Amino acid sequence: MNKTVVSISLPQLAYDVIIAAGGLSFLGQWLSAGEVPPLTAPRKLLVVSNPTVFQIYGPTLIESLTQAGFEVSTCLLPDGEQYKTLESVQTIYDAALQHRLERRSAMVALGGGVIGDMTGFAAATWLRGIPFVQVPTSLLAMVDASIGGKTGVNHPQGKNLIGAFHQPKLVLIDPQVLETLPVREFRAGMAEVIKYGIIWDQELFAALESAPQLDRYEALSESLLHKILTRSCQAKADVVSQDEKEAGLRAILNYGHTIGHAIESLTGYSRINHGEAVAMGMAAAGWIAEKMDLWKADHHHRQLALIQKTNLPTAIPGDLDDEVVLRLLQTDKKVKSGRVRFILPAAIGRATITDQVSSEIIRQVLQQLKASPAQVQG
Amino acid sequence: MNKTVVSISLPQLAYDVIIAAGGLSFLGQWLSAGEVPPLTAPRKLLVVSNPTVFQIYGPTLIESLTQAGFEVSTCLLPDGEQYKTLESVQTIYDAALQHRLERRSAMVALGGGVIGDMTGFAAATWLRGIPFVQVPTSLLAMVDASIGGKTGVNHPQGKNLIGAFHQPKLVLIDPQVLETLPVREFRAGMAEVIKYGIIWDQELFAALESAPQLDRYEALSESLLHKILTRSCQAKADVVSQDEKEAGLRAILNYGHTIGHAIESLTGYSRINHGEAVAMGMAAAGWIAEKMDLWKADHHHRQLALIQKTNLPTAIPGDLDDEVVLRLLQTDKKVKSGRVRFILPAAIGRATITDQVSSEIIRQVLQQLKASPAQVQG
Repeated sequence: MNKTVVSISLPQLAYDVIIAAGGLSFLGQWLSAGEVPPLTAPRKLLVVSNPTVFQIYGPTLIESLTQAGFEVSTCLLPDGEQYKTLESVQTIYDAALQHRLERRSAMVALGGGVIGDMTGFAAATWLRGIPFVQVPTSLLAMVDASIGGKTGVNHPQGKNLIGAFHQPKLVLIDPQVLETLPVREFRAGMAEVIKYGIIWDQELFAALESAPQLDRYEALSESLLHKILTRSCQAKADVVSQDEKEAGLRAILNYGHTIGHAIESLTGYSRINHGEAVAMGMAAAGWIAEKMDLWKADHHHRQLALIQKTNLPTAIPGDLDDEVVLRLLQTDKKVKSGRVRFILPAAIGRATITDQVSSEIIRQVLQQLKASPAQVQG
Repeated sequence: MNKTVVSISLPQLAYDVIIAAGGLSFLGQWLSAGEVPPLTAPRKLLVVSNPTVFQIYGPTLIESLTQAGFEVSTCLLPDGEQYKTLESVQTIYDAALQHRLERRSAMVALGGGVIGDMTGFAAATWLRGIPFVQVPTSLLAMVDASIGGKTGVNHPQGKNLIGAFHQPKLVLIDPQVLETLPVREFRAGMAEVIKYGIIWDQELFAALESAPQLDRYEALSESLLHKILTRSCQAKADVVSQDEKEAGLRAILNYGHTIGHAIESLTGYSRINHGEAVAMGMAAAGWIAEKMDLWKADHHHRQLALIQKTNLPTAIPGDLDDEVVLRLLQTDKKVKSGRVRFILPAAIGRATITDQVSSEIIRQVLQQLKASPAQVQG
């Protein structure tokens, strides 16, 4: 088995991200073999998932865990970002109470980012914090949400406004589960992969550029997929290890997310998915950086070309009201004393943070991205 | 002004508990003078309180804060343990959104333990954690809830099951506000004071023993009240500083709380208040320790005498079903692998932790505390 381990090293604790095709069948064994010493059996595990994912991968995971001596119960939540709410977390609390989870019990998140974020938040706040394990089943969750300890739910008026930092004890990434991921969600995950190429890892970016195709799981060789997963996780690990609580550096992970969040929010979190919004946000940030002479036009065009090769959008919806977008940017978590902080590219592989972006430039770029998305290929 | 500062020193951070009669009028000045450097004005503060407390002390506090340059908004929640719910926390989230609290904004809890716990939890989970200040107005909150970073709400089926560790930036204790505290709540706070005497500070215990009266605010001299507050806060600071996340030592703070929680829960959190339940729990723990030969009968009787001098109950309700109590103990957070962990006194000033208490002893003591509470004075 091709098994790579990326280690996340934080001041207070350390944990591993295991990337292994077929690893789903080995989670119980790895936990009980003491790969994650504080989680050895016997103990109670609450597996949280959604019906879609659980139907396909639940039985394999549960069997692996029970075989290893864990006492396993499950909690299924409806599938979709609109269910990433305090109400869903209450359902997890109810299951935790029903199965009498103790402080040494653990939760296991089997699903995409929504399941991972909610399970992490429930684990962070049940009995003031119990351990949890991430088993991400979407590309987005594998390379982003499952690593770094950000957990939480949406407020009716804003994404991820409610949450906590709570690090998992282990992240298990089994690339084979991507086979059943809808193609649109696969592309959404690739948006975050491209992000790492831009802000941190030019070699990853070059590898993506030289791949013949990028827009669906079947088009990727096993080795390229493995590389994408390990380098993306490593990039996130590097950044998070240096700045667990988002005091400084970690903010660069929000590249593409400032305008991206506004677009997601204004389109009701349904028409456009997170990765697509991030792709639009990166395109916007690329334009802003070019207008402010922060990076070369050539790099800007290479970014746009890669986004388009992945079949992700670079144009933003024509019906977005620019002034509403601007107002919404002001309520973003990243606002500091009323000024919007932008993460902008300085080169392929390097990002910078600034609060010097004028509303005028933002307006220009929004107009540009609505009017002529195609010109960027020229 | 008689102003004492007790420092809480934790691995990651430190903060002060200021005990000062009349201090309420100085909070703004102390914050902006940089006594708590990361919280200097200008910044947004959301004061969370309940109508009863806010009507009396809100204006003084708000004036002190606005005079010092802070931008202050308020959020009032209904008064009472039955409102310590996720729904009330959602009301705080809504206010935080409405007033656009940023990461450098802060929340200020003005009220008793319920307000403090909920405000702390909202601050812990808003934008994944913003600063907060505790201004406790009940004796119970002053000597216990406001210090140590435990925040949270109740689950419909259990107290404090949902929560987080989140340390305040400052705790301001103004003893003068106790003047308007109902006498029953004053006594409830004294239960926790007696607890510190038993588990940690025999000098505090002796001071309480030599006071002519203890059962109401007016009966205490200003200097004894100041001593009670500083020594209780110091005791909690000592314990919490050594064990922030309740890995070991901190558990002794739950002295009287194991059976106490069960009694509160079974009586619907209304008939018997927290302090009364703790008094009953301490009486029970004292009996258990005596039966197990863990402490001397003389110490046991001195504890009972002090509880009774404070006009707190040592008898438990006659209608409690012992078997239901025993079952409930099993769902307590302090359960480890199915065994109930008890904090028992070893002497006045010293506690011990054990999971060796048999159900039979618990049954005997429950019977005894129902049948003949008066004999303990003999």
